[in-house]
Amino acid sequence: MTLYLIGLGLDSEKDISVKALETIRKCESIYLEDYTSKLNCSVSAMEKLYGKPVILASRNLVEQKAEDTILKEAKKTDVALLVVGDPFGATTHSDIYLRAKELGIKVKILHNTSILNAIGATGLELYKFGKTTSIPYPQPSFFPETAYDVIKDNQKLGLHTLCLLDIKALENRYMSVNEAIEILMKIEKKRGEKIFLGKTFCVGCARVGADDMVIKSGTAKELLNENFGKPLHCLIIPGKMHFIEEDMLKMWNQK
Amino acid sequence: MTLYLIGLGLDSEKDISVKALETIRKCESIYLEDYTSKLNCSVSAMEKLYGKPVILASRNLVEQKAEDTILKEAKKTDVALLVVGDPFGATTHSDIYLRAKELGIKVKILHNTSILNAIGATGLELYKFGKTTSIPYPQPSFFPETAYDVIKDNQKLGLHTLCLLDIKALENRYMSVNEAIEILMKIEKKRGEKIFLGKTFCVGCARVGADDMVIKSGTAKELLNENFGKPLHCLIIPGKMHFIEEDMLKMWNQK
Repeated sequence: MTLYLIGLGLDSEKDISVKALETIRKCESIYLEDYTSKLNCSVSAMEKLYGKPVILASRNLVEQKAEDTILKEAKKTDVALLVVGDPFGATTHSDIYLRAKELGIKVKILHNTSILNAIGATGLELYKFGKTTSIPYPQPSFFPETAYDVIKDNQKLGLHTLCLLDIKALENRYMSVNEAIEILMKIEKKRGEKIFLGKTFCVGCARVGADDMVIKSGTAKELLNENFGKPLHCLIIPGKMHFIEEDMLKMWNQK
Repeated sequence: MTLYLIGLGLDSEKDISVKALETIRKCESIYLEDYTSKLNCSVSAMEKLYGKPVILASRNLVEQKAEDTILKEAKKTDVALLVVGDPFGATTHSDIYLRAKELGIKVKILHNTSILNAIGATGLELYKFGKTTSIPYPQPSFFPETAYDVIKDNQKLGLHTLCLLDIKALENRYMSVNEAIEILMKIEKKRGEKIFLGKTFCVGCARVGADDMVIKSGTAKELLNENFGKPLHCLIIPGKMHFIEEDMLKMWNQK
């Protein structure tokens, strides 16, 4: 039958589209990919809206055991795999799509908003974002500098950089704007190329798409002392700005 | 009261979120911004779902006359401005947001998918897109080469380029993938920098997000002879690809 890859949007259970809700209600099994992001609502709130139970799908289940679970079922019946944001947003689900097709299973994508377009709410034009990057929690033997290089490349072209921040859902650890700034400052200290300084203008975002969204801009040093509240956070290093972009950022600071 | 800027997604009236539908149903006036894009459904289908009449809002109404219409009403009551895609997607609605705030009107954004994240369905990673560009219909005295320069900058960094294609909604004219390729070839002929040649690998997309979506890849020359069908179209010039990205594109070609 059909495997539906369904985006849930970013805030509550009600961010789902009418079409996706109708689709879920006719599916036999509903899996929720629960390791790359999270909604600001409980799974039981989702179950109540859908009128169906939701099965939590770990990375192991989706990446290693899909043939014995999701895909096995989707050969016989309609199955939904729910993904926070968009199924082809910050995390692509190409792998399970291709594996399903190999098994002769029909696949349909139901899009929703993703952090990659919802940050347009800052007022920064999505057109003018360069490559997106992510900032992982440094490990004793792993301190990647990719984000620094991406910011550098985008800066050269006057483009904005979106930094997605690490999520360790199993450990309930979500990187804050403050932690991200500290990490970039450490890389700057090591590299010394004056790409990310205390005076670098940044935009910190929290809970984009939710009613209690926070968008605050200022120098990296200023934002270090701001409290952005609950996850999820992300960090933007703007490039060259149009005055309307600046006006939108000022407006958010006054909120 | 409140001005709601509401994204409609890309396909039918049912792409709207449950939250947005509930919001619309309690609004006094519902405007539909009808000049930057369009859904694959009629306005009457939307009205039927909402249970409310929809007022078409031209560019003139939104940009020049909002103070006498949308914003005047939003001072006293709840008003929705519906936007195809996301209200801060390909076209930002910062201007009306800021004007509303100046008048002391509360503004809320309800996101939805935008072409900028839905093209993730191609399998090309959204992370690896550089700056987005658009290709306008050339005029006798206006033949911009911006897209060519953006492709050039992105190519240098190995990044993908999304080209949004011109929409002249009033004239019912929507640029096709084929027209876009012809325009880029004309610019190449003039500039001669070997950025966009007949052998350049391209991805043509039509009706992204809809059930009859088409994604076809091949050289620019090959795609020139393809028929992508009804609007809306967009064109992607991929940068460096991972093999899973290539596998996804092959899969779409076999559809």
